[in-house]
Amino acid sequence: MNQSDAYLDALKFDDHGLLPAIAQDAVTKDVLMVAWMNRNAVAETLRTGEAHYFSRSRQTLWRKGEQSGHVQHVKEIRLDCDGDVLLLLIDQVGGIACHTGRSSCFFRVLRDQTWQDDLDVIKDPSEIYKDD
Amino acid sequence: MNQSDAYLDALKFDDHGLLPAIAQDAVTKDVLMVAWMNRNAVAETLRTGEAHYFSRSRQTLWRKGEQSGHVQHVKEIRLDCDGDVLLLLIDQVGGIACHTGRSSCFFRVLRDQTWQDDLDVIKDPSEIYKDD
Repeated sequence: MNQSDAYLDALKFDDHGLLPAIAQDAVTKDVLMVAWMNRNAVAETLRTGEAHYFSRSRQTLWRKGEQSGHVQHVKEIRLDCDGDVLLLLIDQVGGIACHTGRSSCFFRVLRDQTWQDDLDVIKDPSEIYKDD
Repeated sequence: MNQSDAYLDALKFDDHGLLPAIAQDAVTKDVLMVAWMNRNAVAETLRTGEAHYFSRSRQTLWRKGEQSGHVQHVKEIRLDCDGDVLLLLIDQVGGIACHTGRSSCFFRVLRDQTWQDDLDVIKDPSEIYKDD
């Protein structure tokens, strides 16, 4: 085990080899999204300084922004007491973290027992994902 | 299905009937902790205005602060685009969210490939959990 593995060994991945990672805007402190990381995604995030996640639907490593350009530059990586959740303080390129074209994935708020959108779409997804 | 169930039906729970919930300080916007909720925990949180989670270790509903007094008053509940992560904006009673006696569970920061504590223990856990 070399030094670069030691910090990874502190992480407790679930039965699928994954743990949730929260991306929080380093300046506004808005919570932008939650995605999943495997060991390799964590290592690649640290190595490159850009957030990498593991796509559960595609079962593959996923560099955030690889299609959209909405890369996340990682300023700080934090770990919780149980070692099973990561918190990334990031600079969100383009100001859009969500695939719906909104700044944050948490654009629904519970009011009167109903989910209501309260964040505007900044850019239409069809304009973001031109390759699809 | 009555009105009170409709907002719950929008939630996508995992194979264990759970989804992760992030507790974020409504004022400082610090991310304090992540715990898991089942359908009943979400309903109880909304009904009481205090965060309830599902303890995976004890397999039971858990009112945050029931032992410590560190109750979380919920100001806002948000849902992400996939419907599988909740974000709670809360007022943390006592200013301590973590069972280690720190303000936040995310007290470890990655520096030089090493996890380093950078949040002080506000209150010794033995003083918090006197019933244990």
